Amino acid sequence: MKIALAQINPAIADTVLNMEKIISFMKQADKSGAQITIFPELCTIGYPPMDLLESRKLVDDNIRSLKAITEASSGIETAAVIGCVEYDEKNSPMLYNTAAVIHRGKIIFRQHKTLLPGYDVFDEYRYFSHADDSGIFEFRGKKIGITICEDIWAAFREDNSPFMERRRYDRDPVQLLADRGADLILNISASPYIRGKRQARMEMLAKLAREKNIPVAYVNQAGANDSLIFDGNSMFINAKGGICGHAKGFSEDLLVIETDSPVPCEVKINDIEDIQRALVLGINDYMSKSGFSKIVLGLSGGIDSALVAALACQAIGPDNVTGITMPSEYSSAGSVDDSYELARNLGMRIETIAIKGLFDRFREDLSGVFHGLKEDVTEENIQARIRGTLLMSFSNKTGALLLTTGNKSESATGYCTLYGDMCGGLAVISDLPKTMVYELSEHINRSAGRELIPRAIIEKAPSAELRPGQKDQDSLPPYDVLDGILELYVEQRKSAEEIISAGYDRQIVKHVLKLVNNSEYKRYQAAPGLKVTSKAFGIGRRIPLAKKFTP
Amino acid sequence: MKIALAQINPAIADTVLNMEKIISFMKQADKSGAQITIFPELCTIGYPPMDLLESRKLVDDNIRSLKAITEASSGIETAAVIGCVEYDEKNSPMLYNTAAVIHRGKIIFRQHKTLLPGYDVFDEYRYFSHADDSGIFEFRGKKIGITICEDIWAAFREDNSPFMERRRYDRDPVQLLADRGADLILNISASPYIRGKRQARMEMLAKLAREKNIPVAYVNQAGANDSLIFDGNSMFINAKGGICGHAKGFSEDLLVIETDSPVPCEVKINDIEDIQRALVLGINDYMSKSGFSKIVLGLSGGIDSALVAALACQAIGPDNVTGITMPSEYSSAGSVDDSYELARNLGMRIETIAIKGLFDRFREDLSGVFHGLKEDVTEENIQARIRGTLLMSFSNKTGALLLTTGNKSESATGYCTLYGDMCGGLAVISDLPKTMVYELSEHINRSAGRELIPRAIIEKAPSAELRPGQKDQDSLPPYDVLDGILELYVEQRKSAEEIISAGYDRQIVKHVLKLVNNSEYKRYQAAPGLKVTSKAFGIGRRIPLAKKFTP
Repeated sequence: MKIALAQINPAIADTVLNMEKIISFMKQADKSGAQITIFPELCTIGYPPMDLLESRKLVDDNIRSLKAITEASSGIETAAVIGCVEYDEKNSPMLYNTAAVIHRGKIIFRQHKTLLPGYDVFDEYRYFSHADDSGIFEFRGKKIGITICEDIWAAFREDNSPFMERRRYDRDPVQLLADRGADLILNISASPYIRGKRQARMEMLAKLAREKNIPVAYVNQAGANDSLIFDGNSMFINAKGGICGHAKGFSEDLLVIETDSPVPCEVKINDIEDIQRALVLGINDYMSKSGFSKIVLGLSGGIDSALVAALACQAIGPDNVTGITMPSEYSSAGSVDDSYELARNLGMRIETIAIKGLFDRFREDLSGVFHGLKEDVTEENIQARIRGTLLMSFSNKTGALLLTTGNKSESATGYCTLYGDMCGGLAVISDLPKTMVYELSEHINRSAGRELIPRAIIEKAPSAELRPGQKDQDSLPPYDVLDGILELYVEQRKSAEEIISAGYDRQIVKHVLKLVNNSEYKRYQAAPGLKVTSKAFGIGRRIPLAKKFTP
Repeated sequence: MKIALAQINPAIADTVLNMEKIISFMKQADKSGAQITIFPELCTIGYPPMDLLESRKLVDDNIRSLKAITEASSGIETAAVIGCVEYDEKNSPMLYNTAAVIHRGKIIFRQHKTLLPGYDVFDEYRYFSHADDSGIFEFRGKKIGITICEDIWAAFREDNSPFMERRRYDRDPVQLLADRGADLILNISASPYIRGKRQARMEMLAKLAREKNIPVAYVNQAGANDSLIFDGNSMFINAKGGICGHAKGFSEDLLVIETDSPVPCEVKINDIEDIQRALVLGINDYMSKSGFSKIVLGLSGGIDSALVAALACQAIGPDNVTGITMPSEYSSAGSVDDSYELARNLGMRIETIAIKGLFDRFREDLSGVFHGLKEDVTEENIQARIRGTLLMSFSNKTGALLLTTGNKSESATGYCTLYGDMCGGLAVISDLPKTMVYELSEHINRSAGRELIPRAIIEKAPSAELRPGQKDQDSLPPYDVLDGILELYVEQRKSAEEIISAGYDRQIVKHVLKLVNNSEYKRYQAAPGLKVTSKAFGIGRRIPLAKKFTP
C-alpha cells in the first residue's frame, strides 16, 4: 500500500487557508499514487487553537471545511485522514479531537482522541471529551487503526514532574488496536519540538512497532505557533522497528511510502542544529502568521543579542533586520565596535543612538522626587527602559517586530529589566540557558565556516554594562553552575535539598532558587518565548505571584 | 449539632502559617462549643496553588501540616474538615483534592473531589485525579456527606461558553449523598468572586437544600490570590432552603451555627458595593502577600486613575499612596488641577513631573533614525512610555507597588500603550468595563457622602491627551455601545453575526472585534488584573497571538 505523510503547516483558525492547503496536498498525493494521505492532528484549525475552541463559529467553520475537503475527495482515488474538531449536538454536546477518514466524497470512519494531555503546555481536558474506544477500519485489504498524538504515548512517560506517574494512563489505545488485529497504526500528531524529544520519539515508535509487530505511520504538524515549534519529522516505521521513510524537519513535506516494501533509512540527529532550525522557524512563522516582514533588535555587544541577530537574519534575510546599538556612559568601546562588526558580518543595517542625554534628563527630572535618595538599581533600570522605549519607537514607526534577546538563565533569575530589555513581541532565546547560547553561537560560526559572530563577542565576560565595571558574575554564580541548578529546579522540579544532594553548594542553590521565586512577576509580563526545553517559562508553567513558597 | 464555618484566608504555599491559622481557628471554634469546624478547599496550601503542585516538597509539607493539625486536635472536642492535597504513593500516584475529617488526633474520614473544573481560570485536571465515589460518615448521630466546591454545582451551569453544555457532568455527588441518606451536606469551596455569582450561589444552594430536603453548610475561602478574589460569604442553609447564618463577605470569619434550631436570616446583596470590597481586598492581599506596603500610581486627571487612587487609599490608607501627575504639552490644565483636588480629597501625596523635556529629547535623539518619517502614534506611545519609566523609577527607588489604571474597555480594544500606561504590578480595574468605572466612582462618592472623586473628573470627556484635542470617542464607539458589544463577545463568546443580531451596528461590531483580536499581544504582556466578571483577560482566557480568526 502506498501512503502519503502530508506534514503541513496550518495557520491557527484560518479554516479556509487550511482547507485549501489540505486539498492541494491531497491532490498532489493522489497524483503520486498514494492510497491514503495522512494529515496532522487538528489540521483544519491548526494546533493549538486554545480558547478559540470556545467560539462556536470557529468549530462550525472547521466542520464546513471538513465537508468541503470531503467533497473535493469525490473526484480522486486517495483516502485521507484529517485531524479536525467534531461534536454531536444532540447526543454529546462535548467537543472531540477527531481523525476523520474520508474517501470518495464520504466520511468512512472516525476516531476520537482517547488520551487528552493536561500537563505543561497542554490543556486538552479544557475542551475535549475523550474517546471511549478505538476502532479498526478496513481499507484496501488492510486493517488500519488510528491514534491521535498522546494516544501513542500511553505506555511511555513524557513529563518529568515529581508526579509524573500520573502520566501512566489507565488506557492504551495502541494495545486495543493491536488486540483487534491492526495491520497498520497511524498516528496523527501536533507534537511540539523540545531538545532531545526527536530521539525519544523515534525510539518510542521503533520500540512500539517492534513490540506489537505492527508498522506505524507517524505524521506530525510542521511550523510554529507562538511559543510552540512543531518539527514535522514525520516517519514510517516497519514492524521490525526500522525507520523506512523520514520527512523533512522544520518544514512542510509530502512523503510517499510503499508500506509493503519499505526501504530502511538512516536518520541522524544533530541536537544543536535542530535548535537552530527550530528558532529560525519560530521567528519566521511568528512573523508571517502575524503579518510582520521586518525585525528590529537592540545590539548590546554581548552574545545574546548577537545570536538573536544571526538567527533573525537567517529567518527573514539581513535586508529586513535592523540592529540598534545604544551606548551609555558605562558601555565599553567594544559594545559598539563589536556590534558594527557583527552587523557587517551578517549584512544587516545598524544604527546608533547614545542614551546619555536621555539618562541625564531622566535623572534631572526625577531629582526633585528623589531628593536625598542614593543611586541604586533604579538608575540601571532607567537606562534599560530608555533603550526599550527607543526600540519600541523604531518598531512603532517602521512596523518592524522588536525581538527580545534575553536568555533563560537571565529570565530565570530576574536578571533583566521589565519594560526595558524585556520589551518586544517575541523572545527568541528565552528558553536557551546561557551555556546553550554559547554552544549555538559556536555552531553558527562553525556552519558558516567563519566568525559571523565575532570572537570578541563570544569571549568577553558577560555584562549588562549598566554601572561602571559591572559583570554578570558579580551577581550570579558561574553560568555552568547556574544552568545546572536551573535545569534541576525548573525542568525537573527538584527541591532545594535534592539539588544540593546532586552536588551543588547550599548557599548558591538557596540564592538561585530565591531569585527564581522572586522574579515570577517579571516573567508573568514577558513576551512569548520560543520553547526548546521540556519546561519553558510561559504558558506551560503557571506559578502564583503572591505566595510564600520554600522550594 | 453546633458547627463552625471557618472561613480563612490562607497564604499560597505557606503551609506553616496556614497550619497555625487552622489550629487557631479550630481551638477558637472548640471553645465556642462547635462539634465540627469546617475549613475551605485546599486550605493547607491556599487556592489556587497552580503548578506549585508539581513540587513534591510542597505536597509533602502539606501532608506534614495536616499531621500537625491532626495532632493538635487530640486535646480538643471539635472535629474538623480540612481541605488538603493527598496522594497514595503505592496504589495511586495521582494527587487528590481532599477533605480530611480529623477528630481527637485521628483522620476519621476522607473524601476526594469528584468534579474537577477545567474551564476559565480552573485547571484541576492538570493536577488531580477525581474521586470514584462519595461516602457518608457518621458523627454525633448525624450522617454527613462532604462535597468539594464544583461537586455541588453538578446539576447547575457555571460557564457560559457556547459549549457550556459540557459543564453538564455525568455524575452528581450531591445526589449520591442524598441517596445514601445524608442528614447534612458540607461543601468546602474556594470559589472566586465574580459579579452576580453570590446571588446565583445562594439561589443554587437554597434550591439544592430544598429539593434534596437536606441542610447544607457551605464554607468558602476568603482573601485574594493574584487575580482571584475569594469572597467568603460562607453560609448555612436549612432543609427548606432558608439561609440561617451567613458569614462576612471579603474577610476572614468564624461563624458558629446551631444546625438543629437554625434562625433564618436575611441577606442583602449590593453588587456595586461588592465590587468595591472585592477590589479593595484584591489590592490589600496582593500587597501583603507579596511584601509591599506602599503604592504609587500615575494620575492623569481622568476617571480611571482617580478610581484606582480612591480604592488604593481605602486598601492601605492614604499615607501609603503617592500619585504622580505627568503633564505633557497636550495635557489640559484640568489634568493636573483635578488630580490635585482628588489627592487633597483622599489625603494622599501627589507629585508632578512634566514630561515635555524628556519628550523633546526622545524626538531629538530619534530624529536621525526617523528622518523623513511623519509623526504618528509612535510619538503618543513615547509619552506613555516616558510616564511608565518615571513611575517605575519611583517604584524601584521607594519600593512602592505601581498600580496600573487601565479599564477593561481599553484593554479589550488595545487602547493603551504596552510598556507605557500598562506598566505596573497589579491591574486593579482591568476587568471593569468603562461603564462600570463610572458606576463604581459614583458609588464611592455616594458612600463617602461627598465628592471624593471630583465631579470634574467624572464629567470630562475621556481622553488619553497624547495629541491636541484627542478624545476617546474619536477612536472608539460610545462606551455604552462598546461595553455592550464586549460583554457579548468576551464574556458570552458570541460571534459577530450574533452580536449584530442583538441589535448592534454591523460596522461597529466588526471594528470592535477586530480591535480585540489585534490586541491580544498587548494583553499577553499585561499585569495580572483583578477578576470581577465571568471572563477576565488573563489566566482564564487563553488566545493564540499569531492567528487568523474571523469571529
